[in-house]
Amino acid sequence: MRISFIGSGNVATHLASELFKVGHSIAQIFSKNFTNADALAKQVNAKAIQSINALDETIDILIIAISDRAIESIAFELTSLSCLVVHTSGSIPIQVLSKLANHGVFYPLQTFSKDYSVNFSLIPLCLEANNAENLSLLENIAKSISPNIYKLDSEQRKQCHLAAVFANNFTNHFYTIAAEILAEKQIPFDILKPLILETAQKIETLDPKEAQTGLARRNDLAVMQKHMSQLKSDKLEKLYSFVSDSIVDFYNKK
Amino acid sequence: MRISFIGSGNVATHLASELFKVGHSIAQIFSKNFTNADALAKQVNAKAIQSINALDETIDILIIAISDRAIESIAFELTSLSCLVVHTSGSIPIQVLSKLANHGVFYPLQTFSKDYSVNFSLIPLCLEANNAENLSLLENIAKSISPNIYKLDSEQRKQCHLAAVFANNFTNHFYTIAAEILAEKQIPFDILKPLILETAQKIETLDPKEAQTGLARRNDLAVMQKHMSQLKSDKLEKLYSFVSDSIVDFYNKK
Repeated sequence: MRISFIGSGNVATHLASELFKVGHSIAQIFSKNFTNADALAKQVNAKAIQSINALDETIDILIIAISDRAIESIAFELTSLSCLVVHTSGSIPIQVLSKLANHGVFYPLQTFSKDYSVNFSLIPLCLEANNAENLSLLENIAKSISPNIYKLDSEQRKQCHLAAVFANNFTNHFYTIAAEILAEKQIPFDILKPLILETAQKIETLDPKEAQTGLARRNDLAVMQKHMSQLKSDKLEKLYSFVSDSIVDFYNKK
Repeated sequence: MRISFIGSGNVATHLASELFKVGHSIAQIFSKNFTNADALAKQVNAKAIQSINALDETIDILIIAISDRAIESIAFELTSLSCLVVHTSGSIPIQVLSKLANHGVFYPLQTFSKDYSVNFSLIPLCLEANNAENLSLLENIAKSISPNIYKLDSEQRKQCHLAAVFANNFTNHFYTIAAEILAEKQIPFDILKPLILETAQKIETLDPKEAQTGLARRNDLAVMQKHMSQLKSDKLEKLYSFVSDSIVDFYNKK
C-alpha cells in the first residue's frame, strides 16, 4: 500500500520505518519541521513536503502521528482529502476527524523512545474507523506488522490510554525514584534490574492482584514508617504514604 | 554444605529448594507451623523439628527466613548456637543477631510468590557477616546459586529494600489499578502486557530518567485533567495527580 505521514517524531519514525520494512511504500512526509521530515523521508525512501497542500491524495492512507493537541487543527486543513486519514492517539476521539470523508484511528499501545528499537510484532494495535470498509483497510495494514489487533471504540481507547499511564509512565517514574534512592548510598542500579524484570514477567501468568507482595500488602506499619523516615524529601514521603495507603485499602476493601 | 532453616514461607521454600537442587544438604526445618515445616522438609529431604531446642548445631549455617518482626525474638532463643546464623531480611540490620557468635545476612533481592518458580541465577544476593571468615562462607553458598553477589552493609541493604518497594510493590499495584481500569470497559488485561514488559526491558539499556515518556513528562495538563475526570474514585484521582506532579517536578527541577 501507499502510505503518507504527517509528523516526524518518535511514533511517526518508528511506524513509518516498520511499514517501509515490511514492504509498503511510503509516499510523502509532512512535518512542521522540514529538516526532521526530510531526515525521516530519506530513511524510508519517501519525499518530504513543505506544505500540506502538496499532499498527494492518490495514496491508500494518511497517518497523522503528531502531538495530541495539534491533531484537531491539522484536521481542519485536510477536509478536502478523499483518502483514508487516521490519527495515532490514544486519548483523542475519532470525532475530531469527522469532517473527513474517510477517517479512523490507528493507535499502537506502546512507548516509543528515540534510538530504542521496538519489536512491532508484540505491539497491540487498536483500530477504529468510520465504516466497515475503512476498518478492513486498517486491519490489512495492521496485520502486516502485528498479530495483536484490537477493535476499540474511542471510549475504550481512552480507557486503555489511561491504564497505560499507570502501567508505563508511573511505573517508569518509580524506577527513576528507585535509582535515585540507590545512588544516595552508592549502590548500582543494576542490582534492581532483575527484580524489575521479574515484576513485569510475573504478571504474564499471574493476576497482578495475586502477585502483590510486600509491606503494604501485609500492612506492616512499623517498617513502612521506617521507610518514610529514610526518604529525603517531604514529597517522596507523601508519595510513599499515598501509594502504600492505596495498596492497604485495596486489599482491605476486597 | 549442611544447612538448616527456620521458617517455611515463600522465601524459605524457594531458597531451601534451590540450595537442595544444587547439591547442598538440608538438615532441619523449624517453623511455628509444624505442618508447613513438615511439607517443606519432605520436599528437600530434611527433617522437620517441633522445637528450637532440637536444632543440631553441627551444621554449617542456619538460615532464618521468617517475617521481619519475628526475627529479633527468635534470635534471643538462638544465642547459644555456635554455627553461622543469618537472616534473609532487607530491612532488618545485622545487629539484631549480634548476641550470636557467628552471624550475618543473606538477602535475596527478589519477590517470591507461592507456586511461581524463580530463576535464582538472576537474583542479586546481598551479603553481610560479622567477620571475613563468615562472609567468605556466605559467599561460597551464594555463588552456588547465583553469580550476582553484592556485599552491602545494613544501611545499604535498608536502602535497597526501600528502592525495591518502589520498583516492585508500587509498580505491581499500578498494574492492578490498570487492570481494573481496563475491566470497567471490558478490555482484556492482555492488551497491556507488551507495554508492561517493554517498560521493564527498556531500562536494561536506557537510564529510566531518559526512558520517561507521556503526559506528565510533557506537562500536558489538558489530557491529565481529562484522565482524572475518567477515574472512578477520589482516591484514584488524587493518586493520579500526586504521581503526575512528582513526574512534572522531577523534570522541571533538573
